[in-house]
Amino acid sequence: MTELEQGVCAAAGFRVAGVEAGIKRSGGLDLVLLVSDRPATGAGTFTTHRAAAAPVQVSRPRAAAGLARGVVVNAGCANAVTGARGLADATEMAAAAAAQVGVPAEEMLVCSTGKIGSYLPMDRVAKGIAEAAAGLGSSAADDAQAARAILTTDTRPKRAAERHEAGWTLGGMAKGAGMIAPNMATMLAFLTTDAVVPAARLQPALAAAVDGSFNCITVDGEPSTNDTVLVFANGASGVTPADGALEAALRSVCGRLAAAIVADGEGATKFVTVHVTGAANAAEARLAARTVADSPLVKTALFGCDANWGRVAAALGKSGAAWDLDALRIAMAGVTLLDHGVIAPGEDVEAANAALRPREVTIECDLGVGQGSASILTSDLSLGYVEVNAEYEP
Amino acid sequence: MTELEQGVCAAAGFRVAGVEAGIKRSGGLDLVLLVSDRPATGAGTFTTHRAAAAPVQVSRPRAAAGLARGVVVNAGCANAVTGARGLADATEMAAAAAAQVGVPAEEMLVCSTGKIGSYLPMDRVAKGIAEAAAGLGSSAADDAQAARAILTTDTRPKRAAERHEAGWTLGGMAKGAGMIAPNMATMLAFLTTDAVVPAARLQPALAAAVDGSFNCITVDGEPSTNDTVLVFANGASGVTPADGALEAALRSVCGRLAAAIVADGEGATKFVTVHVTGAANAAEARLAARTVADSPLVKTALFGCDANWGRVAAALGKSGAAWDLDALRIAMAGVTLLDHGVIAPGEDVEAANAALRPREVTIECDLGVGQGSASILTSDLSLGYVEVNAEYEP
Repeated sequence: MTELEQGVCAAAGFRVAGVEAGIKRSGGLDLVLLVSDRPATGAGTFTTHRAAAAPVQVSRPRAAAGLARGVVVNAGCANAVTGARGLADATEMAAAAAAQVGVPAEEMLVCSTGKIGSYLPMDRVAKGIAEAAAGLGSSAADDAQAARAILTTDTRPKRAAERHEAGWTLGGMAKGAGMIAPNMATMLAFLTTDAVVPAARLQPALAAAVDGSFNCITVDGEPSTNDTVLVFANGASGVTPADGALEAALRSVCGRLAAAIVADGEGATKFVTVHVTGAANAAEARLAARTVADSPLVKTALFGCDANWGRVAAALGKSGAAWDLDALRIAMAGVTLLDHGVIAPGEDVEAANAALRPREVTIECDLGVGQGSASILTSDLSLGYVEVNAEYEP
Repeated sequence: MTELEQGVCAAAGFRVAGVEAGIKRSGGLDLVLLVSDRPATGAGTFTTHRAAAAPVQVSRPRAAAGLARGVVVNAGCANAVTGARGLADATEMAAAAAAQVGVPAEEMLVCSTGKIGSYLPMDRVAKGIAEAAAGLGSSAADDAQAARAILTTDTRPKRAAERHEAGWTLGGMAKGAGMIAPNMATMLAFLTTDAVVPAARLQPALAAAVDGSFNCITVDGEPSTNDTVLVFANGASGVTPADGALEAALRSVCGRLAAAIVADGEGATKFVTVHVTGAANAAEARLAARTVADSPLVKTALFGCDANWGRVAAALGKSGAAWDLDALRIAMAGVTLLDHGVIAPGEDVEAANAALRPREVTIECDLGVGQGSASILTSDLSLGYVEVNAEYEP
């Protein structure tokens, strides 16, 4: 397996285009069309938010059907909480894309990301789709431009790909930057492979990979209205991956994209791994880790390089996961601050404060009651986060 | 009923002292002793956090016993997650206070607030208690100084009292300022009355008042390790309040103190009322209102005077409360932005942005499915909040 820097065009037989359709008020690239040159299987995972956006409502049944030739994506408008009009707009957006590239409408998926509660400017969307269809390509420049065109508050594109020695390739791109507050149109990811993969294999493989990657950043802890991960497999390589090989590649590529999302968290100055061990089971470990990772007090302390482990303990306690206070261990940046209920002396806290200065830091918690473990990636809560979100206008 | 500006000394027969014991690293008043001159009934409500602090563990059964002569309080150290040593320290702190004022040890309660995960400096605590016991008084200055001595990140003291025409008085003081992030030692409140109130009446009256006040700010949504509300009734007025009169006074005084806590939220620039109507029932209304009030994206938008109602809708959806999207109505600062699923035009959003500039603002949501309603008070998420919490050292 060779790691590549490319995205959705790393696999053979996929073309893409990113254009400026005029949907973002701030200007810039904001519409992407991604198409397989041949029939392809498809699978998706979607938000569980009860106000799932219109494009999610359109794409979910199509992905479940197992055949998918492509997707049209816009940034700048989430088309969420837009009712019947939004649903009609999403359906029309997919139909326009399908018509432009000459594929069955029901095999064209659709995604939107951006501000919740505004309607799509359908005239601009239609013009953008036509322009994108005319400009489809599979060059490195096309691949890179598409990865930029799906972004909102992100500061950089996110791509990852892997080429397997058996002759097939998996690649993808993602957007997402709102780590602490994922209850808006937060993350999208699109994966392509030229491997031969029947839909019945693709869906469970994607679900497992997402569970171990995008679901282990704080994104789905509070589902957004638009979260979507799609994978397309067009078989252009003619190779059927060996048992476990596709699954491993999906885990790896999704993992790299998920880490890239955390690293680009809004205003983030830290890349934080919260690792919980000794929980009653894996579910409680994940719950505890996520509660720590979501705590604004823990996140502000990390921004301040303040080894305030008491806030970690308070978050663990709040999570509801079983713990044994007499066995509890908490370490920050490798420095143990609470060990079997005994509080470390002040000089250890000073050492931990210093150790928290690098960008990548860890919080380790052993709950002392079982064998469950889990890791969650997150970012800190900085002044920049508030600045980014106080007046969000995509 | 006459509203008074005093606190715990408004009622007859209570003395108080606030001193500088040297517990806060930053210096300043940090220890309070409050005592009734005569035997009194007592009641309390306490955090439901599984890591309830040592003082909570000591005070809870004593309050439940119904007889309470006073309380000793320190700020600067929460004495939470401190294990057996912390429990011994809290017990000793109460015993020292009881000995100094000559009351039974089991009738002296104890509270702590401040940083989680450090031990009390017991020598300083003992000296502070002795000094406080020597300085007990009931003057306006004593009352005011005590209200200052229980504060941590608060910027101002919080007191409220009411004198009933029947001849009895209820007063209190509170501390608390961490609105958005209440998973630390967040709020304490102490109430005194000279009314004649048996313990069997006092406890349910307090519980009901707390449910309608301190539980309607975001404080208890994520319980802290130390949250405590105590009431003492010493009967010094000789008057037994009429049916409902004590209960009304408790609701009123607790409501004023709760509002004062929100108004003093860390870094707060807004005093926000989230009002949900049309919910399936009262519990779902409260859940929906609290989810909106706790959303960092809603809170940052409020800081930016940005009428981003889509974030409100996303938070409502995340809450799990039943809604009818076709009947949903959302208004910010009195301007309707979504009405039965129809999105208001841009000029209405501009009007709402302008209307959000004052300090006191409202968010109204009608879920369109039933008769349940609830209000939650909260503050915004500002740059100041991050600054206050990035390096918290009491």
